[in-house]
Amino acid sequence: MTSLRRSPEKIRLPAGFSFSAVAAGIKVSGRPDLALVEVGGRALSRACPERSRRVQAERGSAAAGGASAVALFTMNRVVAAPVEVGRAALRSTGGRVRAIVVNSGNANCATGRPGIQACERVCREAGRLFGVPAAEVFPSSTGIIGVRLPAEKIRAKLPELIAARSASQRGVLAFAHAIMTTDTRPKIASARFRTSSTDGSKEVTVLGVAKGAGMIHPQLATMLVYLFTDAGASPRELQPLLREACDQSLNCMSIDGDTSTNDTVLLLASGASGARVRMKDVRTRKKFSAALTAVCQSLAEQIVTDGEGVQHVIRLFVEQARSREEALIVARTIAHSMLVKTAWAGADPNWGRILAAVGRCGLPIDPSRVQIFIGSQKVCRNGIACAFNERQAHRNLAHPVCDIRVQLGRGRRSVRFLTTDLTAEYVRINADYST
Amino acid sequence: MTSLRRSPEKIRLPAGFSFSAVAAGIKVSGRPDLALVEVGGRALSRACPERSRRVQAERGSAAAGGASAVALFTMNRVVAAPVEVGRAALRSTGGRVRAIVVNSGNANCATGRPGIQACERVCREAGRLFGVPAAEVFPSSTGIIGVRLPAEKIRAKLPELIAARSASQRGVLAFAHAIMTTDTRPKIASARFRTSSTDGSKEVTVLGVAKGAGMIHPQLATMLVYLFTDAGASPRELQPLLREACDQSLNCMSIDGDTSTNDTVLLLASGASGARVRMKDVRTRKKFSAALTAVCQSLAEQIVTDGEGVQHVIRLFVEQARSREEALIVARTIAHSMLVKTAWAGADPNWGRILAAVGRCGLPIDPSRVQIFIGSQKVCRNGIACAFNERQAHRNLAHPVCDIRVQLGRGRRSVRFLTTDLTAEYVRINADYST
Repeated sequence: MTSLRRSPEKIRLPAGFSFSAVAAGIKVSGRPDLALVEVGGRALSRACPERSRRVQAERGSAAAGGASAVALFTMNRVVAAPVEVGRAALRSTGGRVRAIVVNSGNANCATGRPGIQACERVCREAGRLFGVPAAEVFPSSTGIIGVRLPAEKIRAKLPELIAARSASQRGVLAFAHAIMTTDTRPKIASARFRTSSTDGSKEVTVLGVAKGAGMIHPQLATMLVYLFTDAGASPRELQPLLREACDQSLNCMSIDGDTSTNDTVLLLASGASGARVRMKDVRTRKKFSAALTAVCQSLAEQIVTDGEGVQHVIRLFVEQARSREEALIVARTIAHSMLVKTAWAGADPNWGRILAAVGRCGLPIDPSRVQIFIGSQKVCRNGIACAFNERQAHRNLAHPVCDIRVQLGRGRRSVRFLTTDLTAEYVRINADYST
Repeated sequence: MTSLRRSPEKIRLPAGFSFSAVAAGIKVSGRPDLALVEVGGRALSRACPERSRRVQAERGSAAAGGASAVALFTMNRVVAAPVEVGRAALRSTGGRVRAIVVNSGNANCATGRPGIQACERVCREAGRLFGVPAAEVFPSSTGIIGVRLPAEKIRAKLPELIAARSASQRGVLAFAHAIMTTDTRPKIASARFRTSSTDGSKEVTVLGVAKGAGMIHPQLATMLVYLFTDAGASPRELQPLLREACDQSLNCMSIDGDTSTNDTVLLLASGASGARVRMKDVRTRKKFSAALTAVCQSLAEQIVTDGEGVQHVIRLFVEQARSREEALIVARTIAHSMLVKTAWAGADPNWGRILAAVGRCGLPIDPSRVQIFIGSQKVCRNGIACAFNERQAHRNLAHPVCDIRVQLGRGRRSVRFLTTDLTAEYVRINADYST
């Protein structure tokens, strides 16, 4: 059974990870802006003192010298330096990560060769301190584009950051706070299940931490999302599981339709629980997949709910499409329509704007087969107006979360897409966010 | 020489058209909401009393019983009743229009069969009053979607509307005001040139009247745009000229990326000037094309400038693309990015958001070949930050109109695209525009 924990009070910690954060002076506000996750090391030794590095290595876990790691990156052609460096590092190590170093306040994007070098200097220094190759340090940056990363400030703070690390809720919260930019709250989710393998029942935990509040339109991956598990698995085993989980969550949401240059989803498996996720062990694999998906879905909801200036979250169900891709095209066209989003901001049941968005999505949709529902009420029947209780529809839309259902009458595939309204507050935040 | 007149004070009237407007009670505000253009009839007889219907018919002009007419309609799959009725009418008459009847306050869209019937009843009644078939009355509607058109209110007002018509600036202004919805001002442009054909020099006038302030993202045609000329030409001769003019103007602009269900561009040629636009007469054709394009460009600028909540108009030049289509894809991605548009609202020279939008446009663009200029200053060189005067860039963006240039380093094609910022006022207007 996967039990999903959304509130920060109930963070379940996977064994083998420790977390910390400090203020390095990258953010003008002076708030914490440098964060660390370490795999194994002190924390792991404490968590499972009986386990030797050799045994872990044999189990296919990378925890001996880090975790098995797989990642999804932004589809934007313009990518930040840490995305380039991180991608190359995962290739060169075959998917092994000992530590993650994240800074907020600076995206290190459009900074050219000097940006790459600054990122590499940080990874080298962290690697030196941990006694591992630079390629086992995974870098992330988020913040303003086009400004040189202050690598020296970061390097100078690394010893303090490493000394502060802790395998505790406090550590996770500190990490989650430090990676925030325009987020108003940290985003954390966790899930736990028991395996029932032949080698005895073991407890496996999946923890996810994310940041993101704007520039949210995932194309494969989105924002900064870090997923941690104490299950053991090879990168080859993890990759399809990560893809599946993201397709059901982070790839079905949009705040403003913009895709960041720094989007990263990273999954680390420490193996410290002693449980293994194997291709052939279908039951454990299913349980792990469900836990991972649940964590990603919770993070997606938290991100959308915390979207810049968001007053209303819309759960958009596009149904009766010929394919999932078709349903996604319709969902994205609706979710990116400024006219639709502003109507939602006003809790206005203006279904005509939704229908007009469906009509311009580029698919040969027959309007006379389209049904639209707000809450449980049908508001548009066969593409034309039908009688409905407008006050009730307005009340539904005035809720923090409202369901809208669009049926296309073309097939049997559907998608559940999370999106938001577009408020004057979104404009204020993004007009005032200065270079 | 094409002389472009933008201010309503200098409207040049083409011969053969008269205009009027009344308040029919469709708009709750009680403002004028029903407008008429008549071709020929009383006005034409006054303008060129010497010209008999027979002579005009021989000249290929339709002014005897109306004007030659061609149109472009919305690419949205959801189309309003008047678009369906108008398109069918043009087909059935082979491109002949005697009168245009436009209402604002109601789009007559998503109203099903009753909506079509309501539209047809209005056309039939107007046709009866003019003594022409219903198909020679071209209908347009703009306003709220999904509400039944009050056809009886309109029919009851037709005699008053017809009695009020006038071939004067006053008439044009009344027409232009009555078709407005969220527009804050009427949009009128005119141009005049002299032919130098073998049959003597003649003066030809092109007049354009438009409405539109939101839901502006043309795909072929956009908004309601009416173009009138006293040149004579067959529909076959007019169609490519209208397409060309629109491609250089109304199809290169966007306010919010939404495409209306009612978009219509209609060009009427009365032939009342006695001048003919013939395929073979290259000089006259060129002059006419230039005048038509200039009028459309002026209307496009007026529409964008009057965009909902718009504080800044951006003239976006996308250059060095492999094809015009490629340049348009990049321009539209930038122009529809909420992050880019909100930065413009804040006069923030945040070129990183522009670069990020270029990166996600779907084309295999190499960021290291991209240059971005704000005003005349380069702000991004080869995809990375370069030194520039930020205060100057901020000043440029604070102007009502600012030029932004994006060079892709891929080819030699370019496009000039008009767009706007996204302000809190846009949100307010569209959140409060109630069903």
